[in-house]
Amino acid sequence: MVNIKLKINKVSLSKITKNGRALFLAYDHGMEHGTIDFDDRSIDPEKVLTIADCGLFTGVILQKGVAEKYYDSKKHRVPLIVKLNGKTNLIADPDPYSPQLCSVEEAVELGASAVGYTVYVGSRYEAKMMDEFAKIERETDKFGLPLIGWMYPQGKAVAGKEYSKEVLSYTARLALEVGAEMVKIPYSGDRKSFSWVVKAAGKVKIVVQGGPKIEEGRFYQMVRDVLSAGAVGLAVGRNVWQAKEPIRVAEEINKIIFDDKEKGKKKNRIDKTCGRE
Amino acid sequence: MVNIKLKINKVSLSKITKNGRALFLAYDHGMEHGTIDFDDRSIDPEKVLTIADCGLFTGVILQKGVAEKYYDSKKHRVPLIVKLNGKTNLIADPDPYSPQLCSVEEAVELGASAVGYTVYVGSRYEAKMMDEFAKIERETDKFGLPLIGWMYPQGKAVAGKEYSKEVLSYTARLALEVGAEMVKIPYSGDRKSFSWVVKAAGKVKIVVQGGPKIEEGRFYQMVRDVLSAGAVGLAVGRNVWQAKEPIRVAEEINKIIFDDKEKGKKKNRIDKTCGRE
Amino acid sequence: MVNIKLKINKVSLSKITKNGRALFLAYDHGMEHGTIDFDDRSIDPEKVLTIADCGLFTGVILQKGVAEKYYDSKKHRVPLIVKLNGKTNLIADPDPYSPQLCSVEEAVELGASAVGYTVYVGSRYEAKMMDEFAKIERETDKFGLPLIGWMYPQGKAVAGKEYSKEVLSYTARLALEVGAEMVKIPYSGDRKSFSWVVKAAGKVKIVVQGGPKIEEGRFYQMVRDVLSAGAVGLAVGRNVWQAKEPIRVAEEINKIIFDDKEKGKKKNRIDKTCGRE
Amino acid sequence: MVNIKLKINKVSLSKITKNGRALFLAYDHGMEHGTIDFDDRSIDPEKVLTIADCGLFTGVILQKGVAEKYYDSKKHRVPLIVKLNGKTNLIADPDPYSPQLCSVEEAVELGASAVGYTVYVGSRYEAKMMDEFAKIERETDKFGLPLIGWMYPQGKAVAGKEYSKEVLSYTARLALEVGAEMVKIPYSGDRKSFSWVVKAAGKVKIVVQGGPKIEEGRFYQMVRDVLSAGAVGLAVGRNVWQAKEPIRVAEEINKIIFDDKEKGKKKNRIDKTCGRE
Amino acid sequence: MVNIKLKINKVSLSKITKNGRALFLAYDHGMEHGTIDFDDRSIDPEKVLTIADCGLFTGVILQKGVAEKYYDSKKHRVPLIVKLNGKTNLIADPDPYSPQLCSVEEAVELGASAVGYTVYVGSRYEAKMMDEFAKIERETDKFGLPLIGWMYPQGKAVAGKEYSKEVLSYTARLALEVGAEMVKIPYSGDRKSFSWVVKAAGKVKIVVQGGPKIEEGRFYQMVRDVLSAGAVGLAVGRNVWQAKEPIRVAEEINKIIFDDKEKGKKKNRIDKTCGRE
Repeated sequence: MVNIKLKINKVSLSKITKNGRALFLAYDHGMEHGTIDFDDRSIDPEKVLTIADCGLFTGVILQKGVAEKYYDSKKHRVPLIVKLNGKTNLIADPDPYSPQLCSVEEAVELGASAVGYTVYVGSRYEAKMMDEFAKIERETDKFGLPLIGWMYPQGKAVAGKEYSKEVLSYTARLALEVGAEMVKIPYSGDRKSFSWVVKAAGKVKIVVQGGPKIEEGRFYQMVRDVLSAGAVGLAVGRNVWQAKEPIRVAEEINKIIFDDKEKGKKKNRIDKTCGRE
Repeated sequence: MVNIKLKINKVSLSKITKNGRALFLAYDHGMEHGTIDFDDRSIDPEKVLTIADCGLFTGVILQKGVAEKYYDSKKHRVPLIVKLNGKTNLIADPDPYSPQLCSVEEAVELGASAVGYTVYVGSRYEAKMMDEFAKIERETDKFGLPLIGWMYPQGKAVAGKEYSKEVLSYTARLALEVGAEMVKIPYSGDRKSFSWVVKAAGKVKIVVQGGPKIEEGRFYQMVRDVLSAGAVGLAVGRNVWQAKEPIRVAEEINKIIFDDKEKGKKKNRIDKTCGRE
Repeated sequence: MVNIKLKINKVSLSKITKNGRALFLAYDHGMEHGTIDFDDRSIDPEKVLTIADCGLFTGVILQKGVAEKYYDSKKHRVPLIVKLNGKTNLIADPDPYSPQLCSVEEAVELGASAVGYTVYVGSRYEAKMMDEFAKIERETDKFGLPLIGWMYPQGKAVAGKEYSKEVLSYTARLALEVGAEMVKIPYSGDRKSFSWVVKAAGKVKIVVQGGPKIEEGRFYQMVRDVLSAGAVGLAVGRNVWQAKEPIRVAEEINKIIFDDKEKGKKKNRIDKTCGRE
Repeated sequence: MVNIKLKINKVSLSKITKNGRALFLAYDHGMEHGTIDFDDRSIDPEKVLTIADCGLFTGVILQKGVAEKYYDSKKHRVPLIVKLNGKTNLIADPDPYSPQLCSVEEAVELGASAVGYTVYVGSRYEAKMMDEFAKIERETDKFGLPLIGWMYPQGKAVAGKEYSKEVLSYTARLALEVGAEMVKIPYSGDRKSFSWVVKAAGKVKIVVQGGPKIEEGRFYQMVRDVLSAGAVGLAVGRNVWQAKEPIRVAEEINKIIFDDKEKGKKKNRIDKTCGRE
Repeated sequence: MVNIKLKINKVSLSKITKNGRALFLAYDHGMEHGTIDFDDRSIDPEKVLTIADCGLFTGVILQKGVAEKYYDSKKHRVPLIVKLNGKTNLIADPDPYSPQLCSVEEAVELGASAVGYTVYVGSRYEAKMMDEFAKIERETDKFGLPLIGWMYPQGKAVAGKEYSKEVLSYTARLALEVGAEMVKIPYSGDRKSFSWVVKAAGKVKIVVQGGPKIEEGRFYQMVRDVLSAGAVGLAVGRNVWQAKEPIRVAEEINKIIFDDKEKGKKKNRIDKTCGRE
């Protein structure tokens, strides 16, 4: 029997969670959507990193180029999550593929506390992305780095069923079967079906994607619902940095996600002046 | 002449068989079918591993992610068989391809006693999977690990002939020609044709796939038939963990497969309390 | 100038020829055709290896899996020729491709005295197979192992011209241009055109493929014709192991191929009892 | 945790800029357009290198073959920028792909101070080029070499929108997201929209491509406009070496780009006789 | 900055030229055309090598298999040029691709003084061949071996324009841009346009391909024309070895190519008896 000498590092989510809960600021829209989501403030990575720091996010999601030029692990307190693949939305292929643009080693050098990779589940390039994902999972294991699966139902085969209990639970389960540590998926829309999705993922933690900007009250309700269904948090972008007062919104979300987890503990409150203009 | 220094390890099926017979619990349905096959019990890998342990299975079939998070070679007595490739059934391509998601080295690290890989025989991606299979076979040889060929006739070229004597015997023979140690195939439906399939495989051992849940009596009859045709056992999933009393069903199958092989030996009986609720 | 240190081993056909002539028993039909060519005797590699041994064949052609489980270089006296690529005939693509399933190193480890690789000349995957062939040729050179080109005209571009003087001489020449040591091709059907095919191959030796079973007398005549046209022998499968008395047929072919080469030498006669039932 | 020992070199644009501004002479038209842009003078790389030297360009853009045979870092004072990929325009595919023809290591050996790579943004081969770009970016980082993204909107998906604010700002942002140091893009045509493009690129510097020869006055106006919109300079080819007096034109452009940056500094003036015929 | 230690060898054409002129005997027709060009003499590589030796050719062009079995650098005085890629003409794809069949290292081992590679300029596989060419160029540089570009306009995109000034000058320029040392192209048909083609190639030397057999006088005139237009010689096959008296024809071509270059030097005359039957 050949001896396997490689020591597997213990993978842990502790750097990007607080009391088991997660609140990520997503900011890879420049890659995925161009500048359409941005205004004069949000187009500037510096300003968005201030929001991430002041808003007590447990992670900020960046592509490698933005991380390289703007993120400084000595200066910023928000942990870095590097998105490893990405694509533009210019070629509107109903069956998308997103190539890997950053290696795990590069992400580690940039100071990442976790990495993410999108699999378009149901796309006819699914096999190619699953293959890449599985190889990345092998790499992250070596570094003890958590791999977050952006598992998004997309492609002609799942058109119209992207939010169904059946497809979303399949998607969440896939993250477990292939070895992710955490999975980022859309919300099904109701707590009952989403409880099944959570069960399907087993020991894999679920964060819900924020999606386009909606009315604040409705957004907070969604956060409450996904938590009560068993998710550990969310990754939010536009609903924060497109808001008039991003820090105030971050504060509200912080309360929903972390407060019940901090009973009897000293609360980690947002600084009243930090990042407010 | 260049010297070949690599020592080839002796590959043996002894870890995943008992007296030459095999009974595997298949549980990779989360990858292949999503959550449609599961209920509140079977969706939980922990509970299915208890069935595998208590039911005296000679192997449990898992994808790498589930193995990594739930299987502990110190705690579980059932040997681990890691399925190396997998795909979702969302893209219903009549000519399927299933990418490799786990390396042989990873499987060894996870504590695997054997590995499996699916070749869709007759698919237009057959050459690609045969190529991958042959490379994996080379790897498993180095580790002395048995490679089980999931040889499934599927694709436009074999549509309607998946259970024919001609196609199934071709499929079984392929496992021999390409160097598998064991082959998992569907049952042809009658003992006579299946005897020819067994002959075609030569020294390669055959296990039959269980398929969707059917009436218990009919299932036990199938097990008896495939054994009398020369197969060494079966890989069963839904017919056990979808049953009301999985351990009782496992007990019945154990009797059929192992009893005649244990005459005069101390029988390895299922514990009357283990895993029953 | 960079120094090339690699010593090229002298490649020789001496292990698989006798007095410059060759008689190979082909037995890779399980891969290429399934079990349709087999009966209860010929489906068993053990029995076919006995025919190869007793029939004084100068080589037996096997896929790696059959070689691994049945061929023992200490027990069998027939030299082993490993076929490196192979495919099923289930997907009846008019333009076939056959993937490499065995590396040169594996073949050496299995005790091979030569290896073979099929190029479907005229297939739209011709470039892919030529590329693989050329790389294998490089490998076999390192091991001093002869590479036999299975050069078969097949594909829409050559349909109906597979046995023409023009296409077959092209095919034979290709083996010379690309660096094979020996080439296995179909017979054109007449000695005159085949003499040109032999000329085209130059220093590359030609063996003719046996093809499907035909009437004995006609088969022996074909053997005489190809030899008189300049081929060094043939690779025969079905015309031997589908025959009622394989050893007697082997004896006849041995006489045609080797007798005129053994004048004044001690003849290497087939044992009267060996392998006869 | 595995230790990353690789030291990342500090990437700097200082070798190819002057006071933060850039003026490159593009001369890879032989690859991209053939000889159609050339006359008896401009077809000769020697003469074009004289223009680059005498015209005080801060970089000359060459394919590796021209660099290898004509550029001598001891003789020429203009810094070398090697274009890493390239293609002919003979196959007029609406969705272009341009293969890498020179490695980063080769470029370093040729004496390059920077390298460039074209991504056709919006082409259906975009993912392939983004993948190659990202890998090159990793290589250039090791050498501390700046990577310039030739980010050109091209392909059926962006047809007719190549100069729109939306597409050009997306393109510029892409350079930032994927880790380029500088980006070369077309001019949108008006300062207002181009200011947004500049903002999108953030810390990534923008140079504008010169395009086909136009009337001198209009060309100088464009240079003024792109600078006032925030670009750091331009890459010009035909508007210089197709001009009757290339050095005089270079002198004019030098004034526009560098003069306001050199107030109070000793001006680096073009030699009155250098390169004039 | 990472140190590049690899020493680049000085590439020189001196081994395959005489006084800067070149005369190559092309003999790779067995790969490209089959046996259709051959008669009983020319089908034999031994005889064609005698012509190359006696005819004072400065290079003979062979595929690796023919070189391996027939060319002996100790016996033959003609330098060896190994053609690295090749394909049959059976699959008449209007957009051809020719795979690499011989590595640079193999060519060096065979005693090559130069290597060649065909790029079908204008084929939709152009990018693939340019990519391979560029990688080979990198390899040949390491060995100090000249790389000759067989740059042939072929493909639907250039159909009917293969001999135009525009396409041929593009093709010649491509050889320069990508780093070839010499380029083999068809003749445009008139000296004026070909002078432009020569200019486009710059420091890259041009040899013209001989093409199918034509009337002797016309052939000699073509040789004179291409030399006066600036080419350094030609690669001829059929017009020599299909001739009744190959050595006499070689003698004529020798005079045209080399005589004016040998004024005042001792002429290297063809032996009156060598290779004549």
